[in-house]
Amino acid sequence: MKKIKIGIVGYGNLGRGVEKAIQQSPDMELMAVLTRRNPDALKIDTPDALKFNIADALSLKGKVDVMMLCGGSATDIPKQGPEFAENFITVDSFDTHAKIPEYFDKMNEISKRANLISVISAGWDPGLFSMNRVLAKAILPYGSGCTFWGKGVSQGHSDAVRRIDGVEKAVQYTIPIEEAAEKARKGGSETLSTRDKHLRECFVVAKEGADKAEIENKIKTMPDYFSDYDTVVHFISEDEFYANHTKMPHGGFVIRSGEMNHNRQTIEFSLKLDSNPEFTANVLVAFARAAYRYYEEGRTGALTVLDIPLTYLSSEPDEALRKEI
Amino acid sequence: MKKIKIGIVGYGNLGRGVEKAIQQSPDMELMAVLTRRNPDALKIDTPDALKFNIADALSLKGKVDVMMLCGGSATDIPKQGPEFAENFITVDSFDTHAKIPEYFDKMNEISKRANLISVISAGWDPGLFSMNRVLAKAILPYGSGCTFWGKGVSQGHSDAVRRIDGVEKAVQYTIPIEEAAEKARKGGSETLSTRDKHLRECFVVAKEGADKAEIENKIKTMPDYFSDYDTVVHFISEDEFYANHTKMPHGGFVIRSGEMNHNRQTIEFSLKLDSNPEFTANVLVAFARAAYRYYEEGRTGALTVLDIPLTYLSSEPDEALRKEI
Repeated sequence: MKKIKIGIVGYGNLGRGVEKAIQQSPDMELMAVLTRRNPDALKIDTPDALKFNIADALSLKGKVDVMMLCGGSATDIPKQGPEFAENFITVDSFDTHAKIPEYFDKMNEISKRANLISVISAGWDPGLFSMNRVLAKAILPYGSGCTFWGKGVSQGHSDAVRRIDGVEKAVQYTIPIEEAAEKARKGGSETLSTRDKHLRECFVVAKEGADKAEIENKIKTMPDYFSDYDTVVHFISEDEFYANHTKMPHGGFVIRSGEMNHNRQTIEFSLKLDSNPEFTANVLVAFARAAYRYYEEGRTGALTVLDIPLTYLSSEPDEALRKEI
Repeated sequence: MKKIKIGIVGYGNLGRGVEKAIQQSPDMELMAVLTRRNPDALKIDTPDALKFNIADALSLKGKVDVMMLCGGSATDIPKQGPEFAENFITVDSFDTHAKIPEYFDKMNEISKRANLISVISAGWDPGLFSMNRVLAKAILPYGSGCTFWGKGVSQGHSDAVRRIDGVEKAVQYTIPIEEAAEKARKGGSETLSTRDKHLRECFVVAKEGADKAEIENKIKTMPDYFSDYDTVVHFISEDEFYANHTKMPHGGFVIRSGEMNHNRQTIEFSLKLDSNPEFTANVLVAFARAAYRYYEEGRTGALTVLDIPLTYLSSEPDEALRKEI
């Protein structure tokens, strides 16, 4: 079997997760890791893979089948996506929800012109959660739905806390409120406010001499990030921070519930993840397989997770999947 | 908007569920109900729909877009599927797992020849559960998976109990064992035996003078159906049977869990259904929409739930779905 040759663009947590996921996928091999740093100084886990500066990506044209864009959605992907899509099949986990339609149109135009495929926004939210929201709504159009996130680390909220004066280190956990989830399972999701659904819990290492009461107040009243939620703030030592708060767990659940003829029907999809970036990497790798298969079929353009049948994600042949149906 | 014209073949619980589901779907209308009984005597819930004997189905060619095959998988669908696929787009919930590949091949050949589409085995298991098994395995190839059913009524097991001498009425509930589900969520699904995973609970109305101890023994030792499980038998009155045991609840959950680098990732999809046939009907209706869209695109042949992108199940345009992604 010819293996799909993968390039990883950006070697942070997500890029390293993609490398591990490829090691678990017998139909793929890591061809190259691309970095903005000095590639010679980069330590990677795949001895045979090449190391390149992103600026030299074009020399990999024809050698890499699918480029996995593992940078951030704020500045990296909006720039790299269109650039790489000119010359490579790409897969990314672009997650700025409001900008997805615009990004799709841009990637679709470039990929069509280049006779290539791009798969955008293929993580778990957006991604698997989007798939389940659409599936559940198509099946229970008369119901109502709701998404809960956590328990998990929100990088955006952790960053916001770290920007407060006097904060040395901080991590923020988003915690779904179980009573609200139970209500949603019984069809009451529309009655739930933002505050009802999630709690925010912060673990903060304060700088010496910092005013903890002031830090706590600044967190709890921060607009957009915290003021609409109940927030709990714990001050901890640096030792405790390193011992208990450096992992990146996440997860959540998508619930849809509807009632017809006094019969309630509830669909739920849930994830419990010890490592958010490694799981996102697993999703990206499955969609890289789909992207390559679309390309081999001569199709072009951009795709989202909603456009791709499940057979395309699997390394098993369609007949084998039908046997296990 | 042109509405998709639906025909219902077989007006039992599932057929009536499809009728209700169509009433919730603004892009569809019920054109005809087909029955093996006297159509004039049939009471249906849609005043404008036609009533036909199945033998006269051919007169509906060109008038019905999609035929929903709502008969049983044992004898109805294997016969009706190939017959209807010659002249109509069809959707069914054929659920004899072992025979799906053979049924697919037959339907695929007929539908291709007729320039039509057939969607087979579109219920929830096989169906939504199959989708989630394939999705979860593609994403966590290094994990292990497990399906639990219930709490719900198994028609096959209820029938088996009713065939015992001295049994007047009976219903059998399949009950998932929570400790086993917890084990599966932590990656231990391979260690679970049949007995570990499900309990079988029977509610039996005995005929007057029947030997209850003998009935209970016959149930518990029945090969294939009960002997591999722990089974609980309750004898109840006919009044209690009618008061509490005439609904058709079901559900279950598909779990897959895998560990890589000491990080455990768990995916779970669950259903909690007050009415099994009404939910199956909801699923069939969403796939009827997909079948018709495939047909309109000029495609032909048989499809399973694994072949169809989620956008095809929704009545909303792709652009609208991308906005909600």
